[in-house]
Amino acid sequence: MEFIFLIVPVSSIVALGFAVILIFYILKKPEGGPLLVRIAEAVREGARGYIRRQYTVVSIFFGIVFGVLLVLAVLRLVPPPVPFAFLTGGFFSGLAGFIGLSVSTRASARTAYAAKRSLNASLRIAFSSGMVMGLVVVGLALLDLSIWYTLLNWIYKAKPLSEKIEIITSTMLNFGMGASFQALFARVGGGIFTKAADVGADLVGKVEKGIPEDDPRNPAVIADNVGDNVGDVAGMGADLYESYADSIIATMALAVAAGLGLKGVLLPMAIAGAGLFSSIIGYFFVHTKEEATQSALIWALRRGIYGASFLVAILSIPVVYFVIGRENMGVYLSILCGLSAGVIIGFFTEYFTSDTYPPTRAISASSATGPATVILEGLSVGMLSSVPVVITVVLAIIGSFLFAGGGVNFNMGLYGVGIAAVGMLSTLGITLATDAYGPVADNAGGNAQMSGQPPIVRERTDALDALGNTTAATGKGFAIGSAALTALALLVAYRNEILLRGKSIEIVITNPRLLAGIFIGSMLVFWFCALIIKAIGRAAQSIVMEVRRQWKEIPGLREGKRKPEYEKAVVICTRSAQREMILPAISSMIAPIVTGILLGVEGVLGLLAGAITTGFAMAIFMANSGGAWDNAKKYIEKGNYGGKGTEAHKATVVGDTVGDPLKDAAGPSLNILIKMMSMVSIVFLGLVLAVSIFR
Amino acid sequence: MEFIFLIVPVSSIVALGFAVILIFYILKKPEGGPLLVRIAEAVREGARGYIRRQYTVVSIFFGIVFGVLLVLAVLRLVPPPVPFAFLTGGFFSGLAGFIGLSVSTRASARTAYAAKRSLNASLRIAFSSGMVMGLVVVGLALLDLSIWYTLLNWIYKAKPLSEKIEIITSTMLNFGMGASFQALFARVGGGIFTKAADVGADLVGKVEKGIPEDDPRNPAVIADNVGDNVGDVAGMGADLYESYADSIIATMALAVAAGLGLKGVLLPMAIAGAGLFSSIIGYFFVHTKEEATQSALIWALRRGIYGASFLVAILSIPVVYFVIGRENMGVYLSILCGLSAGVIIGFFTEYFTSDTYPPTRAISASSATGPATVILEGLSVGMLSSVPVVITVVLAIIGSFLFAGGGVNFNMGLYGVGIAAVGMLSTLGITLATDAYGPVADNAGGNAQMSGQPPIVRERTDALDALGNTTAATGKGFAIGSAALTALALLVAYRNEILLRGKSIEIVITNPRLLAGIFIGSMLVFWFCALIIKAIGRAAQSIVMEVRRQWKEIPGLREGKRKPEYEKAVVICTRSAQREMILPAISSMIAPIVTGILLGVEGVLGLLAGAITTGFAMAIFMANSGGAWDNAKKYIEKGNYGGKGTEAHKATVVGDTVGDPLKDAAGPSLNILIKMMSMVSIVFLGLVLAVSIFR
Repeated sequence: MEFIFLIVPVSSIVALGFAVILIFYILKKPEGGPLLVRIAEAVREGARGYIRRQYTVVSIFFGIVFGVLLVLAVLRLVPPPVPFAFLTGGFFSGLAGFIGLSVSTRASARTAYAAKRSLNASLRIAFSSGMVMGLVVVGLALLDLSIWYTLLNWIYKAKPLSEKIEIITSTMLNFGMGASFQALFARVGGGIFTKAADVGADLVGKVEKGIPEDDPRNPAVIADNVGDNVGDVAGMGADLYESYADSIIATMALAVAAGLGLKGVLLPMAIAGAGLFSSIIGYFFVHTKEEATQSALIWALRRGIYGASFLVAILSIPVVYFVIGRENMGVYLSILCGLSAGVIIGFFTEYFTSDTYPPTRAISASSATGPATVILEGLSVGMLSSVPVVITVVLAIIGSFLFAGGGVNFNMGLYGVGIAAVGMLSTLGITLATDAYGPVADNAGGNAQMSGQPPIVRERTDALDALGNTTAATGKGFAIGSAALTALALLVAYRNEILLRGKSIEIVITNPRLLAGIFIGSMLVFWFCALIIKAIGRAAQSIVMEVRRQWKEIPGLREGKRKPEYEKAVVICTRSAQREMILPAISSMIAPIVTGILLGVEGVLGLLAGAITTGFAMAIFMANSGGAWDNAKKYIEKGNYGGKGTEAHKATVVGDTVGDPLKDAAGPSLNILIKMMSMVSIVFLGLVLAVSIFR
Repeated sequence: MEFIFLIVPVSSIVALGFAVILIFYILKKPEGGPLLVRIAEAVREGARGYIRRQYTVVSIFFGIVFGVLLVLAVLRLVPPPVPFAFLTGGFFSGLAGFIGLSVSTRASARTAYAAKRSLNASLRIAFSSGMVMGLVVVGLALLDLSIWYTLLNWIYKAKPLSEKIEIITSTMLNFGMGASFQALFARVGGGIFTKAADVGADLVGKVEKGIPEDDPRNPAVIADNVGDNVGDVAGMGADLYESYADSIIATMALAVAAGLGLKGVLLPMAIAGAGLFSSIIGYFFVHTKEEATQSALIWALRRGIYGASFLVAILSIPVVYFVIGRENMGVYLSILCGLSAGVIIGFFTEYFTSDTYPPTRAISASSATGPATVILEGLSVGMLSSVPVVITVVLAIIGSFLFAGGGVNFNMGLYGVGIAAVGMLSTLGITLATDAYGPVADNAGGNAQMSGQPPIVRERTDALDALGNTTAATGKGFAIGSAALTALALLVAYRNEILLRGKSIEIVITNPRLLAGIFIGSMLVFWFCALIIKAIGRAAQSIVMEVRRQWKEIPGLREGKRKPEYEKAVVICTRSAQREMILPAISSMIAPIVTGILLGVEGVLGLLAGAITTGFAMAIFMANSGGAWDNAKKYIEKGNYGGKGTEAHKATVVGDTVGDPLKDAAGPSLNILIKMMSMVSIVFLGLVLAVSIFR
């Protein structure tokens, strides 16, 4: 039986190998004329600068937490391998982000240049770049898993099988925290960076007449491009690395309680392997004709995702049958619940944020009465959009629970919920690709415009960029949906860990400590969003100052005779992002610990439940309000309601500016908050049990 | 022992008697010159029209639900008196709203006229009008309670005491639903009405140049004034009537489970009585000097509230000692927890929404970069404000639980939570007065302006109006805080009801059905807000149309030679409000029933917990964002950042317009949602248990 585990290292090698092939494929392509290269180089430079500084800060943070974990390990409050697994998790997640960013910043000029030749060639480059990110995330996560699983098997080889499995899964459950921290910095820091640049570049036109937003003379414009890569490639990658790894280890831990033993531990790994192969095959479905309409382009990507999903759905039948046997085939339906929930969430996201449907058009229409009605309409669209998405996830939870046999064996049902998360994330290789494709296309469009390419190039890159906006919205829906399911699996695994330690707990919903925890968890969602929105506001103000300074002090800049000091704006964004990270990072880390100490583990379980549920609805609201505002503005720019430059357009620009921090920073950061707090709760369980007032 | 119950009818008579005295005191005052009278008459006319139509719709709704309840009573799925108690609760709550509205619309012109003579005289009239609302709510709620308690005692007089108590409290627990429905229509309908008029009047200036917002030529101006009374007097009154009644009956039910028996049942009633007397004495503390500053005026009202709170805190010592004995004195501290939480929430609300503190000033400052930054800053201020308020309530919950002895006797602790809600609401007579005072002062200011009173009058009514804005914000904080505590008490009582029926339930937090319920509860908060914001947008658009029509079709209106048809705008608002009510009303009613059928009572408990926690944080966020935007605009109107008419001012006007529906309609409607769903869950428990899939 145990040989099934070999799927994991093999999948890892295949994923990384295929990523290397794609990297060579991309780098072989010409980068284009000198101007294109120069702009791309500036973005690359900025991204490198950001990542260098970010990883410095992250290293310090990791050093401190590593020290704390070492102490806890010595005190036997965490299993001894945890501090080291914390480091490897962080390292691999960081490495994935670094590789993804290096490739995406090299792909954008090549995408723009290839557009001279053909739309399909251009699409292939941008999509391949996204695919590298997807493959590297999956490959490195599985590599980390392989190494530790093998190592722990070797360490505990003397123990009897069932005991060994219990120790290994319980130990590995603690391993997600490294990836959590990396995700926190990448997603939240990246989000603040990108929106500070974006909002700052946007606002400066308000206070200083004549500085256009997308113009090489605007010193913030490179920072804005850097931000796209930093936030949507590296940030999104780290976010989903965490979900991917956590969903697998949580399900492994749940397998033991469900009484499935080794078979149940191996299944999530096998499903991950099946998903990876499906993703790679799906990659080859993505291509387009030369004269493609927007919807044909969307279908080019959809073919990839739907193809991979369909394939993994088929492959999972023999996998489940072979690994956990005919008597547990209900688990297969649990996997389908997760898979289809991912697809359905994507559909609803598109409905609420694309300008081909009524909700976004209603926002455009509301611009007739000014910015206030645009904001109100957008708020209500976003809030409304959370309804079908939450219902979808609820159905997936209940369905996966019941199909796995939760009606008879409660823990078996919970295992079903975990495996649903694994199922949803199994095709991550390609879903992340469609997501990380966006910034490449976006940058390609920006480069094409700034370097004055011929109209056909701009037309093609614009088409790819528009496609990127759609996939960005659906990608966010997928990210939060999977984060919610993963966090839920972690919550359940957390409760099992408590029971494993022989602690009796009173976790009924009417326990005031648990209820108090739910209140606090809900509230933390608001706290986190407030911090991040504030941070972006402050950082954007510094960008405005800097742009004004440069326009005042650099002679010839206004006339386009001299280049602005792009790197200064990048540095400001980087510094702001890193500084503003500290409070959210610390609060999401200490909240579960302090709650545990003051209200006991019952309070922590409440906290997690409150944060997951409120955070989920809030994240969807923010992502979709923001996406809808963005597209409502674009819809007017297409010439509706008077088009660009009218009062109606200005009103939707306000909506877009409000939506930017919500959809790209505050909203996605909630994915991190809910997973991070679950992970911290698990790792610091020993400490909390030792020092809590309610023991 | 049982004679303690007599406090209730006596308090009721005293409250109603004192209200009658105040009504005579107000009506004795002169209403002023013919113009003042005419404007006041128009507002009164509009309010009457609204209330007539609302009560017609409400009657139909009550008829239907009464029929349903009768069927359930025949099927023995609810106790037989429930259908009738449903009617009396609705009737008394409606009557309270009617009386409050009749008085407030008669007090505003008198307040304006008295301002000619003296600030103190003016304050006394406006505050007395608010006090009538407070007294009538408390008086009628206690009257309803007295009648039913006496009646049930008589019906079950043959039963042994402990059994009788159990039947009575368990039956009376079902009695809150009438007040719930009335509150739903008054608060949500009133909220939609008032904001449709307000936002519509505001927007019309955007599309039609030259129609000023506060001008007798604007046909929506009377509807706007009517709205203030309808939303903030009748709506707020019905909202708090429900909280007041529900907190008492929930605590009575919890007393039985706590093993306190009759003593525990009598205590909440006795505390309510002590609170009423304290409120009346507090009334006499409210007066001011002639040359009062703004802060002196605020202190005039605070003296009343703080005085009453202090008094009830003192009075409760002998009451608790005498009613439930020395061994239970911890319960006294639970009462203090509730009382002080109410006061602390008021303080935080003021901090986040008053322009004398940094948060609101930061919003004003952000106007330099346009409306988008005003919106973002306001969102983050509101979200941040939920943090200390939630922590306050959490401390109150945990404190009241532990002080009452929850560490030893779990049910005793839960009784403590219930009695904390009763404590918080005990001074409702006067806290509601400071709240319902606001619209009177607001209308007085409007009347003074429209009738062209001398500057000294305007100065004084402006000062009273500004004070009203502050109390409106703190009143909202109090309303949502008490709603959360009350809903929590109902949630716990609901669980006891389930156990009483001998049903075994699995209400641990890891039960997926319960978790799914939390997801749905959280989501319903977003759904509810989205519906209401959308509804206001639609209604405001109809107002815009109507105003434009009148300006086009009525000759001489533009020049002020002819009066607009005010009543048409009132009718549009009324119709919209009633029509838009239906979906929120139905969804908050059927959500717990459908959830119960599909996910069992475990799902319902999750639903309630999710809705209460998310709804609480969301309601605070919305109320305080809105309040802060409002005052940030006013701060600029005082001459800061360039003052009225500048771009900065326009930016904050956008903030104010966005905030209006959030703070006065969507936010407060969440109070109703969470209480209503708890109440519906209790009443339809029998039905759900009979037909649920998970029995």
